[in-house]
Amino acid sequence: MLNSITFPLSQTAAELAPFRVMKILGEAKALQAQGRDIIHMEIGEPDFPSPDCVAEAAYQATKQGLTHYTPSLGLPALRQKLAEFYGYFYHAEVNPKQIVITPGSSSALQLVLTALLNPGDKVLMPDPTYPCNRQFVHLLHAQSVAVPVDEHSHYQLTLSLLEKHWQPQVRLVMVASPANPTGTLIEAQELQAMAHFLAARGAYLLVDEIYQGLVYQRPAESLLADKTLPKNVIVINSFSKFFGMTGWRLGWCVVPSALVEVLDRLAQNLYLSAPTPSQYGALAVLEPNALVELEERRQQFQARRDRLYQAMQQAGFAPKILPQGAFYLYWDISRWSQDSETFCRQLLLQQGVALTPGTDFGLQQGHTHVRLAYTNDRIEEAVERIAAFLASLS
Amino acid sequence: MLNSITFPLSQTAAELAPFRVMKILGEAKALQAQGRDIIHMEIGEPDFPSPDCVAEAAYQATKQGLTHYTPSLGLPALRQKLAEFYGYFYHAEVNPKQIVITPGSSSALQLVLTALLNPGDKVLMPDPTYPCNRQFVHLLHAQSVAVPVDEHSHYQLTLSLLEKHWQPQVRLVMVASPANPTGTLIEAQELQAMAHFLAARGAYLLVDEIYQGLVYQRPAESLLADKTLPKNVIVINSFSKFFGMTGWRLGWCVVPSALVEVLDRLAQNLYLSAPTPSQYGALAVLEPNALVELEERRQQFQARRDRLYQAMQQAGFAPKILPQGAFYLYWDISRWSQDSETFCRQLLLQQGVALTPGTDFGLQQGHTHVRLAYTNDRIEEAVERIAAFLASLS
Repeated sequence: MLNSITFPLSQTAAELAPFRVMKILGEAKALQAQGRDIIHMEIGEPDFPSPDCVAEAAYQATKQGLTHYTPSLGLPALRQKLAEFYGYFYHAEVNPKQIVITPGSSSALQLVLTALLNPGDKVLMPDPTYPCNRQFVHLLHAQSVAVPVDEHSHYQLTLSLLEKHWQPQVRLVMVASPANPTGTLIEAQELQAMAHFLAARGAYLLVDEIYQGLVYQRPAESLLADKTLPKNVIVINSFSKFFGMTGWRLGWCVVPSALVEVLDRLAQNLYLSAPTPSQYGALAVLEPNALVELEERRQQFQARRDRLYQAMQQAGFAPKILPQGAFYLYWDISRWSQDSETFCRQLLLQQGVALTPGTDFGLQQGHTHVRLAYTNDRIEEAVERIAAFLASLS
Repeated sequence: MLNSITFPLSQTAAELAPFRVMKILGEAKALQAQGRDIIHMEIGEPDFPSPDCVAEAAYQATKQGLTHYTPSLGLPALRQKLAEFYGYFYHAEVNPKQIVITPGSSSALQLVLTALLNPGDKVLMPDPTYPCNRQFVHLLHAQSVAVPVDEHSHYQLTLSLLEKHWQPQVRLVMVASPANPTGTLIEAQELQAMAHFLAARGAYLLVDEIYQGLVYQRPAESLLADKTLPKNVIVINSFSKFFGMTGWRLGWCVVPSALVEVLDRLAQNLYLSAPTPSQYGALAVLEPNALVELEERRQQFQARRDRLYQAMQQAGFAPKILPQGAFYLYWDISRWSQDSETFCRQLLLQQGVALTPGTDFGLQQGHTHVRLAYTNDRIEEAVERIAAFLASLS
C-alpha cells in the first residue's frame, strides 16, 4: 500500500557525509570475524580502559542514590574542581561559572555553534580538520570555509592565513591544539594574535583542546593561562582522551561570561544534563593519584609516537613532521596513491592494517593523506606490513 | 578595548524560550536556602533513585574495563534485550535493528527531527505539549503549528483535529501517550487512524512513549504492537521515567528501517554513542527482578495520583479529568488567574508550593493552566496549602 509514498530525508541529513573511519572499522571487523589478524590504527580512541578510580567513584555515588539529573551547566563541584585543575595544572585562572559541563565534547561543540551561527554565516577552519566540525556547521545551514594547510605551518591556521582568507561573513574560526588528524600544536603567541585579530572583527575563536595533556617533549598548555585574552575565545575540552573516559561521554567548554546563560538554555533543551555517574567519576579522575596514572599513559603514547616515527623513517617513508601531541600521525601518501580510500582498503585487505583515509578530514588534501592512530602497541609490526604493501605497489 | 565590539547570538538561540520550570525551581531553592519549607511539585523527575541493580551492573561492566565507546546505534545486546522486552511486556514484535539507543530521549528527538525537517517545514503538535518539541523544531528553522486541545479530547490530538488542521507543508505530527503535562493517553485505534491518515500524505507520526509503563487502572500499551502500522511511525522512549534512570541519560527510538542508516550517521556526528555505563545498567533494569521493583513504584504513583485528585476534589477545585498516566496533573486555574506565572510565583512565596506555569507547555492555554507533578509524597499538605492560597485570592 505504501510503496508509492515517499518519506524524504531533510536535505542536510541526506547530504551528511558518513565517517570513512567507521566504514574501514566495519570492514576490519568483518575480516577479523573471518579469522584475519588485523592491526587497528584507524580509531581515535585510547586502548587503555578508564582509570579504576572512575568506576569506583561513579559506583559510590550511584549506590547512594545520586542518580538524578544535575543542573544543566553541570555538577557545581565538578565545575569548581575543573577550575582548580586549570589553576595547578595549567597556571590558568578560570572562573568555575564560565565552565559548562557537557555530555561529551560533541555536545559542547553543538551548544556553542548553535548559540552563534545563523544560516549563511561562514566558519573558517583548516583542511585537514576534525570531520564533525564541518558537519555541525552544515547542519546549522552555515558554511564552512576550509583553508588548506600543510607542513610549513604544522598543518595549522596562522595569523597570516587568517588575514589572507578573512571575509566579513566569518563569525567563527575553529582550530585545535593538539590537532586531529595531525597531532600538531599551535604556539600560544600565534593563538593570541589570532584571537585579537578576530576580536577586532567581532568574530569568535574556538580552540579545541580535546587532546590537551597529550603533549610530548614540552609542557602541556592552555590558552586560558593568558590573562589578556579577548572575550571572544571559547575552549572546548573532553574527559575522553587524556583522562581516558571515552565511554562515559563527558566534556566541557570554557566560554565568555556573556555566553553562559544561552548555553544553559540550549543545554536544557538539547540534553537536560550530562550523565550524573560520569560527572562523579570525573571528580575522581582529577585527583592527584589518577593524574600519576595518566602521566604514565602519556609517556607510553610518547614512546609509541617515537617508535612509529622511527620505524617509518627506517622503512623509507618518514612523515614530513614529527607530531607533538594527541595520538595521531598524518602521512602524505601521494608518492604511492592519489586515492586514500582505495589505498586504505587495499592495505587492509592485503596486509590487515586499518588506517583512516584523509578524506574524513578534508576534501582538498584528503585523497593524498591517511591518518595513523597509535592507539595500540603493535607499532613495528604495522610499519613492516605497510612497507610490504608499499613494495607491492611499485 | 572590546567594549565597542558586539558578539551577537544566533537568532534561533536568542529566541529560544527558557524553561519556566527552571526559574521556579531556582526560586524555590533560594527560598529553601533561607530556611523556608518548600513542597516541590514542579520537576518532572521521579523522587525515587534508580533501582540498585543499575549501579551494580554499571559497576561490574566498568571495573572490567568496558569503558570505551559503543557502536553509535547502541550496544547490540541492549538493542536485542529491548526488542525482547517489547515482546513479553507489550506483545509487540520489534526488530532490534530498528531500535536506536540514544543519550536520553532528547537526543532521539533531535536525531529524528534533524533527519526529517527542512527549514520551513511544518510540524503539527498539540497545545499543551512538552516544551522541547517546539524548541527543537525552531532550532531546525522549521515551524511548529500548535493545535489547541482541551479536556474533550483528553488534551490530545485526534484524527478529526488532524483533518481539520491539515496543511500540505506538514511533514510530521508529534503526540505523546501518556502525555506531559496532562498525563492523558491516546487510544491505540485513534493513533492507528492518525498514522494511516498521515502515511497517505507522506508525513510522519512521532509518538512519544517516554512515560510508557506509568499507566494506571489499565494495562500499559505500545503502538508498536499493531502489526498493520504503516512505515511512517516513529516511537521515542526513555529509561528516565518508568525505569527511574534520569541521571544516566539513556533513551531510544524505534524507527522505520529506512531511517536507521541516516540516524546512525547523525549519531556519529552529534554525539558518537550513548554512555557505556548507562547501557550496561539498562541491561539490568530490563531483568524480571527490577521489573518487580518498578511495578511497586508504579503502584505508588497511582496511589499518589488518586490522593491528589481526591484531595483537590474535596478542597473544591477538582481538575477537569483524572489523568491516566505519567505523574502529572494539568489544572485549569482560570477561575482564579489569567496569569499562571504570577500565580505560581505567588503560591510559592506565600505557601511554599512549587508548580510549573502552563506557559512552558503552550502559549494558547498556558496562561490559565498549571502543572502539578506528584513526584513527591506530600500530597495532602500541598493541596491544603494551595487551598489556603486560593482562599487568599478571593
